[in-house]
Amino acid sequence: MPRYECVAISGVGLIGGSVGLALREKKLAAEIVGFGSRPATLEAALAVGAITRAAPDVRSAVVAAQVVVVCAPVGAIVEQVRQIAQQCPPGTLITDAGSTKAEIVAAIEQLERQKSWPSGVTFVGAHPLAGNDKRGPQHADARLFAGRLVVITPTASTSAQAVRQATKFWQALGAITREMSPDEHDRALAMTSHLPHLIAACVAGATPAEFLPLTASGWQDTTRIAGGDPAMWRQIMLANREHLLAAFEGFAGNLEAWRRALESADGPALENLLAEAKRVRDSANGAPGPTS
Amino acid sequence: MPRYECVAISGVGLIGGSVGLALREKKLAAEIVGFGSRPATLEAALAVGAITRAAPDVRSAVVAAQVVVVCAPVGAIVEQVRQIAQQCPPGTLITDAGSTKAEIVAAIEQLERQKSWPSGVTFVGAHPLAGNDKRGPQHADARLFAGRLVVITPTASTSAQAVRQATKFWQALGAITREMSPDEHDRALAMTSHLPHLIAACVAGATPAEFLPLTASGWQDTTRIAGGDPAMWRQIMLANREHLLAAFEGFAGNLEAWRRALESADGPALENLLAEAKRVRDSANGAPGPTS
Repeated sequence: MPRYECVAISGVGLIGGSVGLALREKKLAAEIVGFGSRPATLEAALAVGAITRAAPDVRSAVVAAQVVVVCAPVGAIVEQVRQIAQQCPPGTLITDAGSTKAEIVAAIEQLERQKSWPSGVTFVGAHPLAGNDKRGPQHADARLFAGRLVVITPTASTSAQAVRQATKFWQALGAITREMSPDEHDRALAMTSHLPHLIAACVAGATPAEFLPLTASGWQDTTRIAGGDPAMWRQIMLANREHLLAAFEGFAGNLEAWRRALESADGPALENLLAEAKRVRDSANGAPGPTS
Repeated sequence: MPRYECVAISGVGLIGGSVGLALREKKLAAEIVGFGSRPATLEAALAVGAITRAAPDVRSAVVAAQVVVVCAPVGAIVEQVRQIAQQCPPGTLITDAGSTKAEIVAAIEQLERQKSWPSGVTFVGAHPLAGNDKRGPQHADARLFAGRLVVITPTASTSAQAVRQATKFWQALGAITREMSPDEHDRALAMTSHLPHLIAACVAGATPAEFLPLTASGWQDTTRIAGGDPAMWRQIMLANREHLLAAFEGFAGNLEAWRRALESADGPALENLLAEAKRVRDSANGAPGPTS
């Protein structure tokens, strides 16, 4: 017997579609309901088997769900959670897959303190460090979360039971989970994800078109994530603006050391900087792979 | 009958070993002689079949060679070419695989104008935009140059016949060739290879160790080339210091636009920067793959 009667997924693109495929492959849910604003995406998710049913509206999607996973762009998550909560049966767990957490979790906790929030419905923030530069359910993968880290971001007011439920849900998809506060998460991800995206985009944007035929794997690797969706990344960068600016300043300070070494043709200083970077890079080789 | 009686390769690591394997797979040379300072590397190259013989010294390596390929670190190429030229029979073509060209080509042209340079021996600079972050002949690949760009960097004083010979040699390995002046090459590669390396290393070096478990494919891709050999990259950066500083300033100017957009929380400006980067990145997707 599957663990869940019904799981609903809002937004069945790469991440939401992979949640559905993993649930299906592991026979975790009797029903996997997809919902979202784009009919074509829902049809594609049905076609690849990521969902068992496409729901025409929020109510019919979540009315029987034990877990609702919100896989929407960062800027749309709070409003979706608000709408979903209104339609959920008591006992439903809502979790998300947003790349930033502090703003989202704080806004949802404010909703939870309002009278209109239904009793027995709980939200636990999450961020699966999995994904790639592709979009859409046609790229979804049942193994996307296998062995990957999902950060769970409870606060002092999150019920311990809900945290356990969310942890079990993501672990059931194959993920390793780790609890962090929303702010800790955002500070770390500013450095490990949002700044690299900004820098990759800056390198790509600074490259004159006539030089592109002279790029090879170094440039290709360094700029790969710059191929990501601009509207999505705008939301992420704005939602995590303060931590991103702090990470930016750290990077800019490091960059000054490189400039000084180059300007003064200081070979030993350059080699020290290169060796320190290689040490960090090599020590990260055991870290989990693909992510957003 | 093979095209060459004997090709000699100085430095049989990833690039030199791949030259040997390609020559062998395509049956282009009756004898492929490796030489270099590390006996273990020569033994490994013999073991993988990248060379047919390891020579104990320069003289015995090149005395019968029609082509000598110098696959040494940038800082060692000029002195190796000087030593090799002294031992070559008339008619020998010397080419190289160095990632920078202006300094190397100028220094070798100065040697060629000296009386001690043997008549009939010619040098044509080259840079195969192929490679990866691995080292050593055990990672060599007969298909490393297949469909990849090799930039040939003749000057006004390079004989047209030597340029034709060098072009045919690299094309025979499967490469596409393109002629550029050494300075043009270095200006372009500063932007497409040396700056991305510096930036990747700067991102890696700026990442606190405690955040490494929270990295995923974005960080991994962006910092991949930072795993390269520090001593080798120090030489490349110093040899192409002026063009690299110019590329650095272009990048820093672009970075300022990102900082302003972030500081002022200017969503449309951020999205424009992201979209422009994506446009450049996507338009480069047809460009050749792996490189140094």
